[in-house]
Amino acid sequence: MVTVNENFLKVEKSYLFTDIARKVREFQAEHSDAKLIRLGIGDVTRPLVPAVVKALEAASAEMGEASTFRGYGPEQGYDFLRETIAKREFSDRGIAIDADEIFISDGAKSDMGNFPDILGSDLDVLVADPVYPVYVDTNIMFGNRIRKLPCLPENDFLPLPPEEGADLIYLCSPNNPTGAVMSREVLEAWVAYAKKHGALILFDAAYEAFITNDAPHSIYEIPGAREVAVEIRSFSKLAGFTGLRCGYTVVPFDLKVAVAVAGSGNEAAGQEGGGGAALAKAQALHPLWLRRQTTKFNGVPYVVQRAAEAVYSEDGYAACLENIRYYLANAALLKKGCEEIGLEVSGGENAPYVWVKTPDGFTSWEFFDKLLNEAWLVTTPGSGFGEFGEGYVRLSAFGSREDCVEAIERLGKLAISGAENER
Amino acid sequence: MVTVNENFLKVEKSYLFTDIARKVREFQAEHSDAKLIRLGIGDVTRPLVPAVVKALEAASAEMGEASTFRGYGPEQGYDFLRETIAKREFSDRGIAIDADEIFISDGAKSDMGNFPDILGSDLDVLVADPVYPVYVDTNIMFGNRIRKLPCLPENDFLPLPPEEGADLIYLCSPNNPTGAVMSREVLEAWVAYAKKHGALILFDAAYEAFITNDAPHSIYEIPGAREVAVEIRSFSKLAGFTGLRCGYTVVPFDLKVAVAVAGSGNEAAGQEGGGGAALAKAQALHPLWLRRQTTKFNGVPYVVQRAAEAVYSEDGYAACLENIRYYLANAALLKKGCEEIGLEVSGGENAPYVWVKTPDGFTSWEFFDKLLNEAWLVTTPGSGFGEFGEGYVRLSAFGSREDCVEAIERLGKLAISGAENER
Repeated sequence: MVTVNENFLKVEKSYLFTDIARKVREFQAEHSDAKLIRLGIGDVTRPLVPAVVKALEAASAEMGEASTFRGYGPEQGYDFLRETIAKREFSDRGIAIDADEIFISDGAKSDMGNFPDILGSDLDVLVADPVYPVYVDTNIMFGNRIRKLPCLPENDFLPLPPEEGADLIYLCSPNNPTGAVMSREVLEAWVAYAKKHGALILFDAAYEAFITNDAPHSIYEIPGAREVAVEIRSFSKLAGFTGLRCGYTVVPFDLKVAVAVAGSGNEAAGQEGGGGAALAKAQALHPLWLRRQTTKFNGVPYVVQRAAEAVYSEDGYAACLENIRYYLANAALLKKGCEEIGLEVSGGENAPYVWVKTPDGFTSWEFFDKLLNEAWLVTTPGSGFGEFGEGYVRLSAFGSREDCVEAIERLGKLAISGAENER
Repeated sequence: MVTVNENFLKVEKSYLFTDIARKVREFQAEHSDAKLIRLGIGDVTRPLVPAVVKALEAASAEMGEASTFRGYGPEQGYDFLRETIAKREFSDRGIAIDADEIFISDGAKSDMGNFPDILGSDLDVLVADPVYPVYVDTNIMFGNRIRKLPCLPENDFLPLPPEEGADLIYLCSPNNPTGAVMSREVLEAWVAYAKKHGALILFDAAYEAFITNDAPHSIYEIPGAREVAVEIRSFSKLAGFTGLRCGYTVVPFDLKVAVAVAGSGNEAAGQEGGGGAALAKAQALHPLWLRRQTTKFNGVPYVVQRAAEAVYSEDGYAACLENIRYYLANAALLKKGCEEIGLEVSGGENAPYVWVKTPDGFTSWEFFDKLLNEAWLVTTPGSGFGEFGEGYVRLSAFGSREDCVEAIERLGKLAISGAENER
């Protein structure tokens, strides 16, 4: 008799966005004249840039002609895209990543969720809190043990390596939802920690295009990271591909993990005193991920891969960067507006998210309600991203300039006792 | 210390297509003038039909305008496509499937490989042999036990239910590589078997568009199948989407599986004597698959979903069926040609594959070599699909008419001692 994977029964169903939608719907039913401004959504709103649309259309036409039609492509992606990424994202920036180390994916979420397929079971997993819920849920589904690293003002909202060891570490920089970005020093500490404990880092760089300071865009800027880290990237935020679905995962050839000694899952670790010595670290992950992808995935649509390639054309890249600057200017506006009314704010400088401390001891949901009812603003309650997000709301800068300007005007009229000047 | 999933180390690396490619390369290096005909490939060659290309281009243009741009879509697919499929593939054919039971996917391979994610471990899995290798490899990765059901002339190349029970059953009709199609009676026997043993059927209907007789196109034509079967479908072969990537998986609301009693994985089955009674069959799979997909998948590109919708337009559907008829006519030609020279042949009537018994006691690879060297034909050795494929080669009908005609002429000139008339 077939049974169910009971780990799936342990995943809390997230009601966050359902609850938000219900509250917004109820509010609008009672206030049909209220013009809502939506700062909740973590999704881009600017259309695909012209060079990308042109490439999509051209590839679509190719698929309609027998002489240029393409059937099954390589599961790991076409060379034209892998080589372009290897050059533009890595070698042009002084980072040594081979095109064959790049696996084109249908987005960061799939690979984040699927990567533990090739790892052992019963892992100790570190995640920041607040955090993108997928890291937590996917590891509950695998039956792994999750330890949360609180990200609060006292650590600049950045997870730092704990004393005790772990097996798997999820890092996201710039972070969703806090907008915090990891400095070179912090990343160096994590790479050293992973080496010491024989741990694997899954580095989520989906928001790297928003970095404006000197923080690393890639974990491979840190010496030794090739031996301990997988990097997961996406065209979603760089080029507005949230509806087009394309990303990529870097699995360096040098990345090796332990093979447990037969009869005991942890014997290898025990033998080496948790030190991750050479003998125990025997199995390269690259061939296993290739095997996983060739067995359970059939590649990204040819037309989408051509669109992704066009992101790196001269026109395409310039237009994508213009969109990034547009969103960053929105973030700066929102941040400044919040600060001017006396709110404690972080993020928003290297990320499209502004992380706002609720005033007057409001919970996340109470402040959400106040903003919705008194300023007709939709935000995201921070508690939806984890227990240490309680007492915050997230503002997204992915809307229009006009909406951001008006949101700030409305915020200025709010009665917040922590405010310096209540207009 | 992180460890590797050792099940991945047990998967045999398939050298089948690598070996074929090497042999073909070597042959061509020595015979640069030989015009090879490729009957090996299991991939479509006719371009996308005009209605589909038009929809792709129109959706691409929409993505370039702010007013029509689409970001993240629903993970389970847009309603416009789910409702079209529910109507055209199911309710118009008298089958009750709700649009909400349909999950749009990036192809049959992904869902075939990922579906056991939501099932318990240590499953007894039945697969036909010869068979699409993904069923076997993905279950080795999960650490499940695989039992092969030989498909040979004496059972019309169809897997039949064994005496003993099992947990998970992969059925593919029409079958790749044999081209055999399951009759209503055979499917009824499998549904009854699954009910009796509390087993789950994963029904792969990727080739259903090629059925020309009265065999079921969907397992849901069989009463009771909604309670025991998931059906996986694809636009790859119906509409030439192998490079565009779109399929769908049907998970009926009625489909429930056992939750193992705490402390023993098999206690639930034991309590019920393997009979799958109501109490043990407690957990619906639909919400778990939804949870899996919303956590580890982000949907199919909007432009691709619009292209799939256009398959069902009047022009689109007529053109797709014309392509199917073209491939089926190729298959008929190949089959007739093989029969005329005295080869034993099956398949090719409800499938794009012709399954040819090697003459004179040749192994699959020996006959492959003979066809390559003496007739300049590339085929696929049956042994690459499993041990019971030994002694066969597969011919694909996905090439051009001209190539099929010439392939038959060349076959006719071959010296095969089993042949009636050696021309």
